[in-house]
Amino acid sequence: MGYDLGIMHTRLIITLLTLTLVPLFTGAAERTTAIVIHGGAGTITRDKMTPELDKAYRAALEKALETGQAILNKGGSSLDAVEASIRLMEDDPLFNAGKGAVFTHSGTNELDASIMDGSNHDAGAVASVTILKHPITAARAVMEKSPHVMLAGRGADIFATGEGLEIVDPSYFWTERRWKQLQKKLVASKSATATTHPDEYFGTVGVVALDVHGNIAAGTSTGGMTNKKFGRVGDSPIIGAGTWASNETCGVSATGHGEYFIRFGIARSVSVLMKHAGRSVQDAADDVINGTLTEAGGTGGVIALDHDGNIAMVFNTAGMYRGFVKGDGKPAVFIYGDE
Amino acid sequence: MGYDLGIMHTRLIITLLTLTLVPLFTGAAERTTAIVIHGGAGTITRDKMTPELDKAYRAALEKALETGQAILNKGGSSLDAVEASIRLMEDDPLFNAGKGAVFTHSGTNELDASIMDGSNHDAGAVASVTILKHPITAARAVMEKSPHVMLAGRGADIFATGEGLEIVDPSYFWTERRWKQLQKKLVASKSATATTHPDEYFGTVGVVALDVHGNIAAGTSTGGMTNKKFGRVGDSPIIGAGTWASNETCGVSATGHGEYFIRFGIARSVSVLMKHAGRSVQDAADDVINGTLTEAGGTGGVIALDHDGNIAMVFNTAGMYRGFVKGDGKPAVFIYGDE
Repeated sequence: MGYDLGIMHTRLIITLLTLTLVPLFTGAAERTTAIVIHGGAGTITRDKMTPELDKAYRAALEKALETGQAILNKGGSSLDAVEASIRLMEDDPLFNAGKGAVFTHSGTNELDASIMDGSNHDAGAVASVTILKHPITAARAVMEKSPHVMLAGRGADIFATGEGLEIVDPSYFWTERRWKQLQKKLVASKSATATTHPDEYFGTVGVVALDVHGNIAAGTSTGGMTNKKFGRVGDSPIIGAGTWASNETCGVSATGHGEYFIRFGIARSVSVLMKHAGRSVQDAADDVINGTLTEAGGTGGVIALDHDGNIAMVFNTAGMYRGFVKGDGKPAVFIYGDE
Repeated sequence: MGYDLGIMHTRLIITLLTLTLVPLFTGAAERTTAIVIHGGAGTITRDKMTPELDKAYRAALEKALETGQAILNKGGSSLDAVEASIRLMEDDPLFNAGKGAVFTHSGTNELDASIMDGSNHDAGAVASVTILKHPITAARAVMEKSPHVMLAGRGADIFATGEGLEIVDPSYFWTERRWKQLQKKLVASKSATATTHPDEYFGTVGVVALDVHGNIAAGTSTGGMTNKKFGRVGDSPIIGAGTWASNETCGVSATGHGEYFIRFGIARSVSVLMKHAGRSVQDAADDVINGTLTEAGGTGGVIALDHDGNIAMVFNTAGMYRGFVKGDGKPAVFIYGDE
């Protein structure tokens, strides 16, 4: 009897321990994972797009989402998912980031990127780099392997080289499509009557992810603005403007006319409205893009993702390359404003 | 009688018009003007200071305040006051900005500055410039004479040269005191047991002003962090981190371990708490420095000034060079934490 009681006691303890501890280890698998991406916003309309290009963009967005999703669903970190998805878009000449970077006024390519870890506000950024194949990986290296948050220009190129990151000749970033965009812009800027549409000439890629551990990460990478002045830094490498992440609220990546995004701290504003005004991620993103940004005369958009996996994709331009996937679902991707 | 009543009626109307309209035109002159400055925060204690150095810092702070005050009291703009006061500190080798800039690890000087106009959120910044005598003036030129907000490195130097700003040979920034600081730091970093006090090696200058028109402006200028990696960008040129201004709330300039100020968007956080949490400028600055920054392990401080001329000067270091003046009063300047 005393023995049985002892066994029952032991069983009870094991049951209690199981009830208490197992959710700690398996609970992770029950959490929502989610990932949202953008590939730039602008005057993207059906009449400017061929069926082939439309299809190519959608396929590229899906592939980037699935790459991040696979990492998240194996229990990988949101930082790993963000980096991997962005690297894929940096390799794709369709997007104005990495390989597909636009040209500066001087005919060079200067790339910017940033990444932020919502669990501890760690952040890393590179600005005006010229020889790094994957600026997002360099931004992460600044965050994890340097005491700094932001490195710019040759100092950033040298740091990344020292860290063993993949280096390319600056000619790697030459693509015919982007070179023609610069020539068109240079001609247009000589004609006083020419109407230029600045929002045709910028783009960015960005990813926000939520992992099984409840950690949010956000990253942004860009080739900047066609015909920009040498040394111009846009919002993409600016923490608070182009990128923000905080587990408490949300992660955000922005794209658009960067100067407005810096002046109004657009990415962080979404988080501020969630924290201090009790808004949902959708309402906060709506208010920041259709309120603050639009009233100031700025154009662009944001993607945002909160700690429960709720997603917002808001822009005040004709279109934004965008998409998301949750858990083990199928990616949903969109291009135009009416989708 | 009818005539008298008519005169009385006319007089009444004139009196009412006078009471209503005169304050609209003269109200400007009645408004408080105010200016607050800092010259860096760190382990500034009485035992490390000679009486001569103590006196020199106080005199320099007073002179910078009086320069801004004179502009404000003639009805000049807060932007003009901020720029003029900072230029004076950039010329003074006592401060880590302009002439007195510290050295990078490579033995070069790289300077950063930013300025923001609280009336319209306009902003300008330069990062890692090397030949500009007054980086704050270059930041203002980026704001007013370029379509961009931020220019970095050689592109910024070239832009400022094109705008006719004062250029100096990089050797202008060589000072014995800063060179010795670098040598000391280089030796210390080779010794594994050496205790380095990072907060001894950074500094910044910053000014926030409120003019008779009710406009707030803020600016920050720095020589960066001694022994920093080539290309490192701190918080000073980052809008939202080192500098922020909005007429609706306040203007802020920060100084300290810049990486923390970027990761938590310290300057803007003061404004966020005023706008969304109904805090006074003093409570907001206290909360951000003694709460957010301190909990994250960061060191430094902020100066802030609201639309009514209320001033906050908060830091979690032993001291901060600081001071303020209101209207046509006498400047009050302070160095140590117990003042």
